Amino acid sequence: MSVMDRPGGAIADADLQALRKLLGAGGYLDAAGDRAPFETDHRGICHGRTPLVALPDSTAKVAELVRYCAGRRIGLVPQGGNTSYCGGATPRPGGGDIVVSLRRMRRIRAVDPAGDSLTADAGCVLAALQDAAAAAGRLLPMSLGSEGSCTLGGIVSTNAGGTAVLRYGMMRDLVLGLEVVLPDGSVLDQLRGLRKDNTGYDVKQLFIGAEGTLGIVTAACLRLFPRPAVTATAFAALASPGAALTLLTQLRAALGDAITTFELVPRLALELVCRHVPGGRDPFERAHDWYVLAEATAPQPDADLAARLEQSLAAAIDAGTAADAVTAASMAQRDALWRLREAIPEAQRAEGSGLRHDISVAPADLPRFIEEGRALIAQHAPGARLVAYGHLGDGNLHFNVSAAAGDDGRSLQAAGPAIRRAVHELVARHRGSFSAEHGIGQLKVDELARYEDPAALELMRRLKRALDPCGIMNPGKVLETAA
Amino acid sequence: MSVMDRPGGAIADADLQALRKLLGAGGYLDAAGDRAPFETDHRGICHGRTPLVALPDSTAKVAELVRYCAGRRIGLVPQGGNTSYCGGATPRPGGGDIVVSLRRMRRIRAVDPAGDSLTADAGCVLAALQDAAAAAGRLLPMSLGSEGSCTLGGIVSTNAGGTAVLRYGMMRDLVLGLEVVLPDGSVLDQLRGLRKDNTGYDVKQLFIGAEGTLGIVTAACLRLFPRPAVTATAFAALASPGAALTLLTQLRAALGDAITTFELVPRLALELVCRHVPGGRDPFERAHDWYVLAEATAPQPDADLAARLEQSLAAAIDAGTAADAVTAASMAQRDALWRLREAIPEAQRAEGSGLRHDISVAPADLPRFIEEGRALIAQHAPGARLVAYGHLGDGNLHFNVSAAAGDDGRSLQAAGPAIRRAVHELVARHRGSFSAEHGIGQLKVDELARYEDPAALELMRRLKRALDPCGIMNPGKVLETAA
Repeated sequence: MSVMDRPGGAIADADLQALRKLLGAGGYLDAAGDRAPFETDHRGICHGRTPLVALPDSTAKVAELVRYCAGRRIGLVPQGGNTSYCGGATPRPGGGDIVVSLRRMRRIRAVDPAGDSLTADAGCVLAALQDAAAAAGRLLPMSLGSEGSCTLGGIVSTNAGGTAVLRYGMMRDLVLGLEVVLPDGSVLDQLRGLRKDNTGYDVKQLFIGAEGTLGIVTAACLRLFPRPAVTATAFAALASPGAALTLLTQLRAALGDAITTFELVPRLALELVCRHVPGGRDPFERAHDWYVLAEATAPQPDADLAARLEQSLAAAIDAGTAADAVTAASMAQRDALWRLREAIPEAQRAEGSGLRHDISVAPADLPRFIEEGRALIAQHAPGARLVAYGHLGDGNLHFNVSAAAGDDGRSLQAAGPAIRRAVHELVARHRGSFSAEHGIGQLKVDELARYEDPAALELMRRLKRALDPCGIMNPGKVLETAA
Repeated sequence: MSVMDRPGGAIADADLQALRKLLGAGGYLDAAGDRAPFETDHRGICHGRTPLVALPDSTAKVAELVRYCAGRRIGLVPQGGNTSYCGGATPRPGGGDIVVSLRRMRRIRAVDPAGDSLTADAGCVLAALQDAAAAAGRLLPMSLGSEGSCTLGGIVSTNAGGTAVLRYGMMRDLVLGLEVVLPDGSVLDQLRGLRKDNTGYDVKQLFIGAEGTLGIVTAACLRLFPRPAVTATAFAALASPGAALTLLTQLRAALGDAITTFELVPRLALELVCRHVPGGRDPFERAHDWYVLAEATAPQPDADLAARLEQSLAAAIDAGTAADAVTAASMAQRDALWRLREAIPEAQRAEGSGLRHDISVAPADLPRFIEEGRALIAQHAPGARLVAYGHLGDGNLHFNVSAAAGDDGRSLQAAGPAIRRAVHELVARHRGSFSAEHGIGQLKVDELARYEDPAALELMRRLKRALDPCGIMNPGKVLETAA
């Protein structure tokens, strides 16, 4: 019998009693007001119901909880900072799932500056881990908008990306070891920080990006790096995304992989930030169609990094690749330039109704993709405004749409499904990804079934069945059925 | 019924006839003399028998072959350059396995310098891929001793390491996409070169390091990097491995991750190279106990990289970390210094009988590990000589032993099993890996069952059953039973 046989069916009082006893005083929340924040995603799109939020304080307690729920076929929904864009951490509506929060598990177990590794409980907030690495003189390069609230367990389980992937990779590239409670309640101990280990299958890879559907990550060991000794930041104006790609090639030729960040910003995004975000200011005299935020860092003292970046930009302007550029002369100026990129989601929300897509294609295909996508959107929602921004160097854009001026959003939202289908079909034609960063959660389960290579999809289902035969782990996420 | 139910039982003539027909003229080898090179590993330790070596010339043909063998429960042993140190590509003795060589599949499908990726058939030899990347002005950083014969399929399936892992990672870090023929004959198409893709489980990870036990890798898309514009190479003399670790920390502080290689060489290894290898020459006036080969590269023109390396070494000598150091003033000098490291296996073979161990621990633990290991070896084989060399920066040493002077090897080989047990027990006490680079193959199956975390081992068995229920893929490798 699988937990999906009674999708979301309520949990028996006797089980809830037993779970309260198992978790102990302070080990759970069950008052409606306390449960509410765990029952809705941060975008207010996904609404579920849970009778009990479990707050285990140790890996052993998580294992005890999972063992009980496996025996009783009770669904478990791991929730970190609840910052998923796909409803990946929201329980089902029927009240049949226990939400598991590791917010009481926030111990940094070890920081090893010499070995360049950090080991911590999955409940730790990313910003706290960045600070711990910095305090030890090292860099934890993972950086993203929600770093003040997202947790280690969440970013491992979603294989998070962010603004430094170009240089340091995604979470999968940073994970050296994991501790995971498996769906049968056994504990997988792969928390070693070894750089090299070819003893059999690297099973920890299974849980990175699995969104909690194969087990609960309770701790991780992450790679650390030398802290940048110098940082050079620039904001350049360009005529097109194609010019931006050319600029990236030129900067890499001059600075190699000192280039850590290369983010595309369209004119409209800059206008929205200047309109809605305090301190948002256009750094240029005149308007340009496109911009990039580029940053170079060097771990060793390298006096002329900034000079090399400025020379490269000057050369790009002479060559006609870029129209204009400014560089940050101070940390305050750097923060101001970063704000122009990082405040885009906030500014777009303030502007009103919008649609989100999280796509990636081969970087060289992006310019054509943007124009083809723009035309499709114009067909379905005349006047709607494309806000395509993000990680150009990774081939990954947040291909968002804002409602036409004067549209209260109703007509855009009405066209939303058709636009999403058109954009994802375009992604498929470019052999790209319809979810480059944000995962599947519950909102993209149908898209995965529709677009994934059939052999890969069948393999995913086999893995789910092999690891979680009862389907208790985050039911209804990633794959359409649990068993 | 599993293929293991008749371990190595011979294959029926009717099946062999059908396979010859399926593979077509030029698609197989079945003469004894042609089969022989595929039936023994390159070290001459593992001996098997195969009635037929399949030479498919396309992914479709591989799929056809696998489908037939799945239906008839015939074992398939993928073999690349046959350079495994663990007998991972040698068939079983009973003649029940077909060896599959992709040597006719050597097409480089695409080189994308702008997208920094290379896509090629699994039969391509590593050196040919390095050359193709170089011809496009890019770097394929994977580099190891057998690069002239090992194949893409082999290094993906063994998650190969080598001498640039410190900077560029192992094969897992370089694989962007894979094409794999699954044990049921279906083809997994994950050959896209996307930098970011979080659409469900990253199933391609399963086949990296699986040693052909979960499917046959037929093609891969690899990451490329900027070519080093400058390379600075040094050979330093030190009193101890601990001093070498201190030097690594000091070099990283000065040069950051420009340090691409940091290899430990003991005095005895240098002596063996000077004794047995043409051109082997001690670069120093007097003898030192330990040495390191260190190399720094920068993808951008960086005139003072060599100067910074020399200054750091001079400072290390002043500080007493290093005793002496030489730097390469020419490519010829660089090659000579590299030879002192790369010729060690050849020199040790020439010296006579030896034992091999491939271990990793946390780098900081290596000095203590070496001394504890040396003492254990002295207990079991008085006079035997430790040759511990390799990837210090990765915490990975080839912890080898040469017979005592005067021992024809018999007494060392007699003590071999006891020494291996003692060394691997020591590895376990340090929470290290008993196979950091070379995998499990058939020679370490018992070690894996003995030392692996039980939850991880059970997970590996579940994966094997889920993907290869008939156990036809490389039977008897990695896991002790196929089903």
